Amino acid sequence: METKEKEFNIDKFQNFSEWYLKVLEKAEIVDDRYGVKGFYIILPFGMFLVDKIYSLWESELNKKNHRKVLFPLVIPENNLEKEEEHVEGFKPEIFWICEAGEKKLERKLGVRPTSETAFYPMYSLWIRSYKDLPMKLYQSCSVFRYETKATKPLIRSREFLWIEAHCAFKSEEEALNQVLEDMETTKKVYEFLGIPFLFFKRPSWDKFKGAVFTFAADTLLPDGKRLQLPSTHYLGQNFSKAFDIKFEDIDGTKKYVYQSCYGPPISRTLAALISIHGDNKGLRLPFEISPIQIIIVPILKKNYEKEILEYCEKIKSMLSKFRVEIDKSEKTPGEKFNIWELKGVPLRVEIGLNEVKSDELTVVRRDKKERMKLKISELEKLEEIGMQITKNLKKEAREWFNKKIKYASSLEELKNNIKEGFVKIPFCSIGEEGRECAEALEEICDIAGTLYPEEEKPREEKCIVCGKKAEVYVYACRSY
Amino acid sequence: METKEKEFNIDKFQNFSEWYLKVLEKAEIVDDRYGVKGFYIILPFGMFLVDKIYSLWESELNKKNHRKVLFPLVIPENNLEKEEEHVEGFKPEIFWICEAGEKKLERKLGVRPTSETAFYPMYSLWIRSYKDLPMKLYQSCSVFRYETKATKPLIRSREFLWIEAHCAFKSEEEALNQVLEDMETTKKVYEFLGIPFLFFKRPSWDKFKGAVFTFAADTLLPDGKRLQLPSTHYLGQNFSKAFDIKFEDIDGTKKYVYQSCYGPPISRTLAALISIHGDNKGLRLPFEISPIQIIIVPILKKNYEKEILEYCEKIKSMLSKFRVEIDKSEKTPGEKFNIWELKGVPLRVEIGLNEVKSDELTVVRRDKKERMKLKISELEKLEEIGMQITKNLKKEAREWFNKKIKYASSLEELKNNIKEGFVKIPFCSIGEEGRECAEALEEICDIAGTLYPEEEKPREEKCIVCGKKAEVYVYACRSY
Repeated sequence: METKEKEFNIDKFQNFSEWYLKVLEKAEIVDDRYGVKGFYIILPFGMFLVDKIYSLWESELNKKNHRKVLFPLVIPENNLEKEEEHVEGFKPEIFWICEAGEKKLERKLGVRPTSETAFYPMYSLWIRSYKDLPMKLYQSCSVFRYETKATKPLIRSREFLWIEAHCAFKSEEEALNQVLEDMETTKKVYEFLGIPFLFFKRPSWDKFKGAVFTFAADTLLPDGKRLQLPSTHYLGQNFSKAFDIKFEDIDGTKKYVYQSCYGPPISRTLAALISIHGDNKGLRLPFEISPIQIIIVPILKKNYEKEILEYCEKIKSMLSKFRVEIDKSEKTPGEKFNIWELKGVPLRVEIGLNEVKSDELTVVRRDKKERMKLKISELEKLEEIGMQITKNLKKEAREWFNKKIKYASSLEELKNNIKEGFVKIPFCSIGEEGRECAEALEEICDIAGTLYPEEEKPREEKCIVCGKKAEVYVYACRSY
Repeated sequence: METKEKEFNIDKFQNFSEWYLKVLEKAEIVDDRYGVKGFYIILPFGMFLVDKIYSLWESELNKKNHRKVLFPLVIPENNLEKEEEHVEGFKPEIFWICEAGEKKLERKLGVRPTSETAFYPMYSLWIRSYKDLPMKLYQSCSVFRYETKATKPLIRSREFLWIEAHCAFKSEEEALNQVLEDMETTKKVYEFLGIPFLFFKRPSWDKFKGAVFTFAADTLLPDGKRLQLPSTHYLGQNFSKAFDIKFEDIDGTKKYVYQSCYGPPISRTLAALISIHGDNKGLRLPFEISPIQIIIVPILKKNYEKEILEYCEKIKSMLSKFRVEIDKSEKTPGEKFNIWELKGVPLRVEIGLNEVKSDELTVVRRDKKERMKLKISELEKLEEIGMQITKNLKKEAREWFNKKIKYASSLEELKNNIKEGFVKIPFCSIGEEGRECAEALEEICDIAGTLYPEEEKPREEKCIVCGKKAEVYVYACRSY
């Protein structure tokens, strides 16, 4: 599994698709050779990042009084069918277990594509009284969808990792507040990771099947295409009526609960992290989450090998509060530099005979490729430099993202700008009335939705498609 | 989901099965009403423990240079069929995905019952040279087996949680050393959790299908029946030949790798933890892993509610390094005591008006039900008391377990003792020659195997079944 030594150099912005697949392979994030379409193997370096992203999210959810559970993988067919719009939306994508051993199963079992229809029959048993509310449960798991579009590791696959949080409330207001809370949670996690995004209310034709409204955070990948990240669905009473989830209120009356669900995608967050921070040389990882934070590369010299390696070990032990490794492989220093740059390790410490003799280390920052000297007595500065790296990555990402948001007041302008990223346009409506206008744009772009919380509405402008009064500004884009 | 208030009191040793199912329900570990045979929901209290057990094991594996990955859930049929004995063993238990959407799949996909046949085709791509070895990868995941025996939550279910570690080595010796390392890992985790066990080499008729030898750690549940915990399989070159996993050795020759795999069961470890430490009042959890370590129960008095609750909050904030909660529900103090005893929370702090006035808390240990007074200035002692609780639970468990290991030198004696737990007996052989003798005992007991590392062999004794010279001592038992 050793990474080959050739220097990595692909223009991320010009050839994003090639860059992305090569980085996943060479940095040992994912292996795409498993042999079943749309299913991938997550390798150790990638798995470390997956676990980090999971724990960031779980910790935010726990702080906000969500509690973690685990439901079965399988969902009986009759549960899946209870909410009409939902089953229509998901049926073409469900994998079905039909046999066990040599036997045909009497009733086939769906492999969860999402777990509303697993959770909610239990909610109807668990929720009895207003005292049981709010109920805020989540699970961390794989979900499975028979994607017919082209698949791409971590971005669109038939098995992917996510969290799904399912909430039930006494009132519509509380459920809508949960949408805002989920937005805050998303913000917390993505600020930590330095992933810029916009938060949208989706057009009615693009909502989750079974929801009243769908809200979602979208980022842009280097090719200017939109990648949907977490979405939160306000379900109203659609599912509580289908699954008979009622509570006795304080006044003794029985009422259906109001629900919301939130789906942070772990695989896609990793895809965004890699794509947004990387450069032409490979990954660039924020210091806090990098599997290896500091790599020590010995620059061996004949007759001094032992001395240099011992010095490396000494430095490593002085840095024990970080994730540090010494690269003792047989490669040349240059090859080692390339590999660890490709893997995005934030700090490289080079130790040769000069360093041993002078007690002064050579340190290289991955983000800016800056070399600097650091006295052994100043080692604690590495933490600060690490944090500067993260800060710089965030800043670069934010500046790039902000430049990718354009404005267009005509179809012509939209066409000229759409390859950039998001294009804000005056638009008739994100309700059903707007569907035709969106369809008219299909060849050019999608409509991500209106910003949420809402921004100021257009005053005098006209929908750039139909020419009727524009009720809203929407964000157009090309999408994954 | 609120636990009902009636006091829990079931004789754990007399009515273990009832005790076990009721504890899982009342302490909110598992819900067994999902509606698909053999599939259960893990509730928040149980999920916290699941995560703790996972992180204990993962941390031990990481220390020993295993690296975490994640393979797809699905395994193509032709991979599953490559190792003959393996497929024969697992075929009756495999769930098959045969449809997606409305379509029949061209080749059906097995839902992993274990992942040798997912990992090893990739090992044949990843392993090229002796420099790639040892390869030690693991994953944490659910596996699925179509059990035809009666199912029981966490003990025998159709979906269960585990870790599977798959290792490849240059030599047989290294692979056999891995078995010893896995034994050490098991020991580390179970010493921490206070779960006593014996480590066995399994009889040839009870080995993992496809393995050369199987080793396993077994514990006893309160009914004296054996529960298999982690097993390690020495696979020799069986799979490397089936999957063509070869490496170029330092001398340039191509060789097949030697393999082992290790399977720590997370669900069953939780079952063992619950069953072994619990008492007639419910769970008793070790201090280090309890979801709530200290529960504060306010004993409210009219006109002093606010004062008492504020004092509770003050104590809680002084205990912020622990997982502490205040039970502010509307139940009576007596009901609260019952619930938290049932949930096994190690320490209860009772705070009423007396406590507020005297700055002296009432503390109750869950394990021994001892009450004690503790000055507010001595609060840090709670940690020490917590650790004593764990120590005491471990000691009780160990003493009980040791008493359950008997010796029998005749069939009669075996029959008299078998309800106790393990019965050590002189036996002809755990190779194929011994199979008939084991089958003759089938109605009475199973043969867990010989202790590993091996204990002293019998000198003059005879197999208690066939009367031939006893080559080994084996441990007989009734099994889950």
